[in-house]
Amino acid sequence: MRQVAIIGIGQTKIDEQWDKSLREIGGDAAFAAMQDAGIEKVDSLFIGNMLSSIVSGQNQLGTFFSDWIGLWKQEAVKIEAACGSGAAAFRSALMAVASGDTDSALVVGVEKMTDKAGHEITAALATAADADYEVEQGVTFVGLNALVMRRYMHEFGWKHKDFAPFSINAHANAMHNPYARLHEKINLEKFENSSMVATPINLMDASPIGDGAAAAIIVPAETVTRKPKIVVAASASATDTIAVHSRKDPLFLQAAYLSSRRAYDMAGVTPADIDLFELHDAFSIMAALSLEASGFAERGQGVRLALENRISPQGDVPVCTRGGLKARGHPVGATGMYQIVEVVQQLRGECGQTQVDGARIGMAQNIGGSGATILTHILKQEE
Amino acid sequence: MRQVAIIGIGQTKIDEQWDKSLREIGGDAAFAAMQDAGIEKVDSLFIGNMLSSIVSGQNQLGTFFSDWIGLWKQEAVKIEAACGSGAAAFRSALMAVASGDTDSALVVGVEKMTDKAGHEITAALATAADADYEVEQGVTFVGLNALVMRRYMHEFGWKHKDFAPFSINAHANAMHNPYARLHEKINLEKFENSSMVATPINLMDASPIGDGAAAAIIVPAETVTRKPKIVVAASASATDTIAVHSRKDPLFLQAAYLSSRRAYDMAGVTPADIDLFELHDAFSIMAALSLEASGFAERGQGVRLALENRISPQGDVPVCTRGGLKARGHPVGATGMYQIVEVVQQLRGECGQTQVDGARIGMAQNIGGSGATILTHILKQEE
Repeated sequence: MRQVAIIGIGQTKIDEQWDKSLREIGGDAAFAAMQDAGIEKVDSLFIGNMLSSIVSGQNQLGTFFSDWIGLWKQEAVKIEAACGSGAAAFRSALMAVASGDTDSALVVGVEKMTDKAGHEITAALATAADADYEVEQGVTFVGLNALVMRRYMHEFGWKHKDFAPFSINAHANAMHNPYARLHEKINLEKFENSSMVATPINLMDASPIGDGAAAAIIVPAETVTRKPKIVVAASASATDTIAVHSRKDPLFLQAAYLSSRRAYDMAGVTPADIDLFELHDAFSIMAALSLEASGFAERGQGVRLALENRISPQGDVPVCTRGGLKARGHPVGATGMYQIVEVVQQLRGECGQTQVDGARIGMAQNIGGSGATILTHILKQEE
Repeated sequence: MRQVAIIGIGQTKIDEQWDKSLREIGGDAAFAAMQDAGIEKVDSLFIGNMLSSIVSGQNQLGTFFSDWIGLWKQEAVKIEAACGSGAAAFRSALMAVASGDTDSALVVGVEKMTDKAGHEITAALATAADADYEVEQGVTFVGLNALVMRRYMHEFGWKHKDFAPFSINAHANAMHNPYARLHEKINLEKFENSSMVATPINLMDASPIGDGAAAAIIVPAETVTRKPKIVVAASASATDTIAVHSRKDPLFLQAAYLSSRRAYDMAGVTPADIDLFELHDAFSIMAALSLEASGFAERGQGVRLALENRISPQGDVPVCTRGGLKARGHPVGATGMYQIVEVVQQLRGECGQTQVDGARIGMAQNIGGSGATILTHILKQEE
């Protein structure tokens, strides 16, 4: 396998982009990545997306975007793994370049969600869960996460307000990210008094949806002269059961454990070597569970990392340094690519007030469904 | 890149499978492929599917099936390229094995379509076209193909009945394929007198939808001892504009031309070396255009190959040897994998009355949209 490097990144602000079509949103991120890389052409295109067939009546996004972006004739394909679609597309592109089949690939994670009413999006998001054995019973996607959070609080003795530091950190970091959906500093009072979504998950535990796209361009590492050189040190994907109730232990993200361990092995690192961790805080409970399964905290102790303020950009386990899903926003199929782009920004030292000092190794972890599909990528800055 | 071999295949009968769920249909093909390969475990799973989110309310099919099939913990992902999803999933799996990242992959193309009413499926299939610039104007997917067929007849002077031999050949071959949707021999009279769908496309020009799944297992070729050894000699994918009206020449399948030429180069063959060609006859016009763009006939002369009876299993350009999309059936996201499976059957010499004598090199070509995404695979029998 050839080693792969990232030579360009691009992203759009996550928002209600009612004045922009699906193609324009994805195109904007793609063009930004090509401009950043200083190239006008790539050999192949990989799109990560979950909902375009339902929300926009558009399938075949690979060719849809190769046409719009001006990559006529080139290979193009779409990859879907629910909210893990972005990282899954990145991983597919990696395989294509690593195998030697293609010499450059553009990966775009894109999602347009706000053209539909809330209840329609709730139904669309439920397609990430098990249609026959979860959704058919009336549970929503946030409902599933609420069940997990309630059980976690019961099992390990945490109170709802103990999760607050995750959201406070995410909102504080997003203040310095122009692409973030929410620019609003919050405190414990705001966290505790927010409207309930599905007990115990309230608005401040839950990430906002949005329209947005993020993109990256990858090539064989040996061809790159730009400095700092950002290489993909590891890529791993693992799965769990699709339904939460099928798991022996619904409080342990098996797929995060497996994909992070494979990634650590591949990169030759341990959690202590990771300078920042862009995790998948779709709900605050998922931030805690991700930290635990990925080896940063003992079982039931992920919350403590946040309470002890170790997750800020100045802490020893910085997470959501650009706002995370909670405040940067969660355009589902695009999120995995936002995470990759943000890790690159950190490794390039472009993050201003939320820059992690001397960041050399960053990790991104993207989750599809309620922990069903989890992809872990480790990026390294060389020189 | 490592060379890759196919060690197991499986498929279900294409039908209205109202007594089987999406998971059962995909699982049946997967289990059959594992049994054929004599293995119980693979490292990774690639699903090709187009419509499950719309028809079954189910996304994230990678993990959905890894769970059902018993491949817990393994990598799993879904690839979508409209009706080209099956071959696109096969190609993604190839890259993963060829790169050295994974040592065995199961690819399943699966589609469940008949749970919805006809007008709902017509709308769902239209997501393969351009939502903004084609579908919004009221055109259906068959309508687009009808425009192309009409223009072809006008341009090259063919009559509707000249396309009949494509359907007659497909129906004749399907008689000997137990997995085919239609077991009904047709003649010119039946072809000419069938109900109109979208002028000039009538029922006998159009492939039937259905529920079905087809699967294959691939591994590095050097590990295979089973004979005959079926290797993947070439894999290529190319795109055109997504909307038909954007093309300079809507009668030339640019993406078929590009992907077939890349495949010929990769495999070191010419069209004359291809012993059989499983092409994408979603409509009879597409059979003619595929033969032309892939180098088997001059522009406007694809129909002549059929009229001269050269496309039967005994001809020099056998196509649709198991019934093609027209009579085997077209469960959209599964079709590309049916084609791969059928080429393997031919190269193994398992096709009985429709066996192509001495078949050593077979080609499969899968189309997404109205020629927008086209993938070509060439398989070879070694020893």
